[in-house]
Amino acid sequence: MQVLKNISTLYTCRREGLQQNVHSIQHAALVWVNGKFKWAGKEADLPAEFQSAEAVDANGNIVVPGLIDCHTHLCFGGWRPDEFEMRIRGKSYLEIAKAGGGILSTVEQTREATFEELYVKSASLLTKIMALGVTTIECKSGYGLTLKDEIKQLRVYKKLQEQFPVDLKTTFLGAHTIPPEFKLNRKGYIDLIADVMIPAVADEKLADFCDVFVEESAFTVDEARRILETGKKYGLIPKLHADQLSSGYGAELSAEVGAISADHLEQVSDEGLKKMAEHGVTGVTLPLASLYTQQPYLDCRRLVNADVPVAVATDFNPGSAPSYDLPLAMMLTCNHGRLTPAETLKAATIYAAKAIDMDEIAGSIEPGKKADFLIINAPDVNFWMYHFGGSEIESIYIKGEILRA
Amino acid sequence: MQVLKNISTLYTCRREGLQQNVHSIQHAALVWVNGKFKWAGKEADLPAEFQSAEAVDANGNIVVPGLIDCHTHLCFGGWRPDEFEMRIRGKSYLEIAKAGGGILSTVEQTREATFEELYVKSASLLTKIMALGVTTIECKSGYGLTLKDEIKQLRVYKKLQEQFPVDLKTTFLGAHTIPPEFKLNRKGYIDLIADVMIPAVADEKLADFCDVFVEESAFTVDEARRILETGKKYGLIPKLHADQLSSGYGAELSAEVGAISADHLEQVSDEGLKKMAEHGVTGVTLPLASLYTQQPYLDCRRLVNADVPVAVATDFNPGSAPSYDLPLAMMLTCNHGRLTPAETLKAATIYAAKAIDMDEIAGSIEPGKKADFLIINAPDVNFWMYHFGGSEIESIYIKGEILRA
Repeated sequence: MQVLKNISTLYTCRREGLQQNVHSIQHAALVWVNGKFKWAGKEADLPAEFQSAEAVDANGNIVVPGLIDCHTHLCFGGWRPDEFEMRIRGKSYLEIAKAGGGILSTVEQTREATFEELYVKSASLLTKIMALGVTTIECKSGYGLTLKDEIKQLRVYKKLQEQFPVDLKTTFLGAHTIPPEFKLNRKGYIDLIADVMIPAVADEKLADFCDVFVEESAFTVDEARRILETGKKYGLIPKLHADQLSSGYGAELSAEVGAISADHLEQVSDEGLKKMAEHGVTGVTLPLASLYTQQPYLDCRRLVNADVPVAVATDFNPGSAPSYDLPLAMMLTCNHGRLTPAETLKAATIYAAKAIDMDEIAGSIEPGKKADFLIINAPDVNFWMYHFGGSEIESIYIKGEILRA
Repeated sequence: MQVLKNISTLYTCRREGLQQNVHSIQHAALVWVNGKFKWAGKEADLPAEFQSAEAVDANGNIVVPGLIDCHTHLCFGGWRPDEFEMRIRGKSYLEIAKAGGGILSTVEQTREATFEELYVKSASLLTKIMALGVTTIECKSGYGLTLKDEIKQLRVYKKLQEQFPVDLKTTFLGAHTIPPEFKLNRKGYIDLIADVMIPAVADEKLADFCDVFVEESAFTVDEARRILETGKKYGLIPKLHADQLSSGYGAELSAEVGAISADHLEQVSDEGLKKMAEHGVTGVTLPLASLYTQQPYLDCRRLVNADVPVAVATDFNPGSAPSYDLPLAMMLTCNHGRLTPAETLKAATIYAAKAIDMDEIAGSIEPGKKADFLIINAPDVNFWMYHFGGSEIESIYIKGEILRA
């Protein structure tokens, strides 16, 4: 048993109340044992039974829950830096694809990569992601687009989960794009997903969620409905890439199928938000994708005002969001997404947990939850978000164990 | 004498040619002695006379010139994190000022701070800035707004220059805003600047430049002209904060007075750009200020197309740009400013040097210049800018000495 003392402010981030209510405690102490929180409160109220626990000094710093990145495409072959330059120069998606870029070039490189190559690369990235304070992460497939290669990606995640202390939640995203060999046979690919891939993924227990990229250039609402409903039959919880480039009934579909989250939402309709609120769908903002594709940022106040909980994630991938910097995504959510630092903190903790069905286990500092937390050298959360890069993470604890002093 | 070998690509960033021409050398080597570059070229062409120099292995990484932050307000009292939240909530400048925020609150806190307090704080910040690869920096006064307090800030910079290996260039910015005690007597403050402050600053050799914030809410074109012309008489080179919130003849004035740079420029007119190009004025983009104030970003392609060299800087200050992260400003210049990574690299090196009259001494890797350079773990500059946060700086050399291994 350990007790952290001398915490200037402890942001528990319990889920109750408004997005801005981070349930902070001044002059706090925090107790954990066997990897789980045992007690949190004012240091002056520390019960006698915890007085003899091994003490750690927070040195007057603030403490927040471990961060949760609830939307990443962590495992992929290759990179696409030259596409970045082309996009800056105003090249269209079609021109980039013709020059050998775009998502299909990542599909090609992911198919070519071995399991071992993908594992080594993903493990190296995950190590750096953890150093930013991320203690739970969601990871998607979707660069294989064959049974074999989708399974290969998902098995990389399974091995990462075995080797790393962070918790990984995994998403089957066979419906990321239509692969080239099915270009003239869309229905054939949807059939393959529904009839072959989903059963195989579920059989091997490789995914928690089933996700579809609903967009004019990707999958229609009807195709998505079929895939997500099939996934549900196999125990995969629905998720959606929705309303990113155009408002296309994505948010509405997320409510209809009972999705746990709808992600992107830059072009979401008011009707879609209303339906999300009614059905308890969490909205996930991905500001790095707006940044890197030079598209409008999501105004997250629209979601808050519509009573839709907002989570923030990186969307880390080699094309539209080639940075895994969740603190940067959080700062962008403040400046361009119009959430306050407190709202953004909840977006990267308890609501991010909610978006990946982890809110009973992670995302807040409450007895019984896993003891994931960060000690940050800042006077408060406003200062931390505002002075970007200036407030150091003093310590990262994952399941009660310090990661880095 | 030392020689760096096994450089995959050396980006010399010589000034000649277009902004995009970074003058790179593949399979390069680099020689320096007594803090200055001696030779740069293909490793296969390394002259015999340098073969015996002490060898350092770049391990196949890339090498770029040390970064230059050519626009900061490094020395200030206090911080303004709560204003950040108010701005996100849509509070107006006036409401923020009424709640005790805004630039005048920093003026108050800077006046209250002692020289020693300001020195310790600035030194701590500068240490972190250097760790990002910044080897030359420009620092402005402008939070004192009395003779005594402007001098106090500038003396902090003088002491930093004595204590740190980076080169500091300093700017007198008495014309940052009208201080409260002159609210009803603008002319009295302009007189004070022109008749008292500028002569005193010049007499003590505390500044290289004289800067004015030309804006509806700050100083008029006529006031700026008088101040900048007075500065010139005392040997201070003119600089301007121009056309940030409105297009107000700022760029045109920069050409008229022979300024070395015009900074901000979000609302610059085409006529202003034409005049800047004719008079060789460098344009400095400050994307972090756009980010934090939720104002439009400068489209830097307009400057490139008008033959105005573009530099990028952080504008680091406690209100509108509370991050000193120059690599972040560079990445924003790519994504929102529409410069390619190569163009942005030149913006943060040789053109940044040009903006602060250091291009004969710094900003590129050429014989005779100070040996400031970075070894970066990336395959090329496109990858470095695109995979934000993912490419580590392996080593920083300032004047030939390694800062951090």
